[in-house]
Amino acid sequence: MQKIAFIGAGNVAWHLTHVISKNGYSITEIYSRNIENAIDLASHFADTVPTNSLDFSESKAEIFFVAVNDDALEGVLHQLIVPTRATVAHTSGTQSLAIIPHPKAAVFYPLQTFSKQKVVDFQAIPICLEAKNSDTLAMLKKVANTISKRVYEFSSQERQLLHLAAVFSCNFSNFLFTISKHILEKNPQAIPFDILQPLINETVQKAFDISPENAQTGPARRGDNSIIQRQLALLDTLFGENITLPNKGEDTWKKIYQLFSQQIKHYYQESYRENYKEI
Amino acid sequence: MQKIAFIGAGNVAWHLTHVISKNGYSITEIYSRNIENAIDLASHFADTVPTNSLDFSESKAEIFFVAVNDDALEGVLHQLIVPTRATVAHTSGTQSLAIIPHPKAAVFYPLQTFSKQKVVDFQAIPICLEAKNSDTLAMLKKVANTISKRVYEFSSQERQLLHLAAVFSCNFSNFLFTISKHILEKNPQAIPFDILQPLINETVQKAFDISPENAQTGPARRGDNSIIQRQLALLDTLFGENITLPNKGEDTWKKIYQLFSQQIKHYYQESYRENYKEI
Repeated sequence: MQKIAFIGAGNVAWHLTHVISKNGYSITEIYSRNIENAIDLASHFADTVPTNSLDFSESKAEIFFVAVNDDALEGVLHQLIVPTRATVAHTSGTQSLAIIPHPKAAVFYPLQTFSKQKVVDFQAIPICLEAKNSDTLAMLKKVANTISKRVYEFSSQERQLLHLAAVFSCNFSNFLFTISKHILEKNPQAIPFDILQPLINETVQKAFDISPENAQTGPARRGDNSIIQRQLALLDTLFGENITLPNKGEDTWKKIYQLFSQQIKHYYQESYRENYKEI
Repeated sequence: MQKIAFIGAGNVAWHLTHVISKNGYSITEIYSRNIENAIDLASHFADTVPTNSLDFSESKAEIFFVAVNDDALEGVLHQLIVPTRATVAHTSGTQSLAIIPHPKAAVFYPLQTFSKQKVVDFQAIPICLEAKNSDTLAMLKKVANTISKRVYEFSSQERQLLHLAAVFSCNFSNFLFTISKHILEKNPQAIPFDILQPLINETVQKAFDISPENAQTGPARRGDNSIIQRQLALLDTLFGENITLPNKGEDTWKKIYQLFSQQIKHYYQESYRENYKEI
């Protein structure tokens, strides 16, 4: 049974320890700066030692997964003491492989956002691997293949591209959901946000079924300027009637609306550049 | 058995006729400007007459659903001849009730995007109703309640707010997916877009589980300026290396990134206004 230690006891560590343990690996130690968190998580497994020390020179673990926040990662990696035979893999999407000062450095990045104790289907989660040498890569590939059907090998540069794409499609989309929710709250009797759930679900489904370029709908896609003008006027009203400072960004909802409408028109109209006018 | 006629044979009509017929209503006629489309759709039902004439003075239908494109709606409504006893309901999210020149005017708007012959669970789709008088409303409520569990009554103004919110959360999000896909294609060996599917699904799920304000993650949410700067630099590289004119909008990916990062920081930092700096 291969032995694995975990540095970190947050959401990523919570999910990875559970799925890895379930697939026949032994979790030797779990580290957290706050020993309570380490004790909590270690209690889920047999023979796992909780610790708040980064000195693992006596550890039996062959792989150390470092699953701590991005801003703590570099500090933790520099304090970490592991046996030389051990592999050290961080789980970050944004940090490079080079940040790990060990000969058997690696990255083991599950492309998912985790909430503690919310069950996820790991088999569907892409695992992005990178390693300093091929033996280390092979070892991590074996672990990854036991928990997921979607294992990829990406360089640090490719992972950066992936992270950038995720910021656009997840972080920024979520902020659009927040704006939508506030727009619905502008009604004298707030319209519940969850009214949009079936439509948003179908939008996402379609984007993957037929690709997002083909799935685009809406006034800007149709070049329907009368609706665009009407919606811009509506945005003015919403902002005008309800402004409070510091506000929730109402003043830029219009800017976002204009930028997207312009860009969508640009994207779908070949002759857009000739006909370009500020809307 | 209540009798219903359909003006239009597109996606919305396709789905509404099927679900309404399945729930015990009789489809008397289906109109399309192109008779072939009317014949096609009518062939799915017993005793449904296809037509390309808008003169329904002899029709037995009690309700006329007008499910045509927004830009054709006004023209069709003005040519439409129906018995005075009949209710006329359009299915548009953007057009007002007032556009219908009939005493029993109504709106029956299913808040969903439909693809022909892709099965949808109608029970979960919000149906937004509006009517000129209470009898008409009651009649449509009965129809709506037989096909969906989520029936709402909204004024034309409220429906406009809803449509605006849908543009932000669906149309604009989909465009962010398109940008993400193109970012991944910038890699020498294109990274497949569907790698983002589990993450996007989870993002949407979380937005409805804990509300989008609470679900927000990412560098801007954490105020992580070093990652923001690094991603802006990466966007410069992508644009610089691959520009072709007319391009796909690469030149504004950075503008979108900056606008969202600023806005997300603004939204989550109370002291943002004091500390405001162009990033």
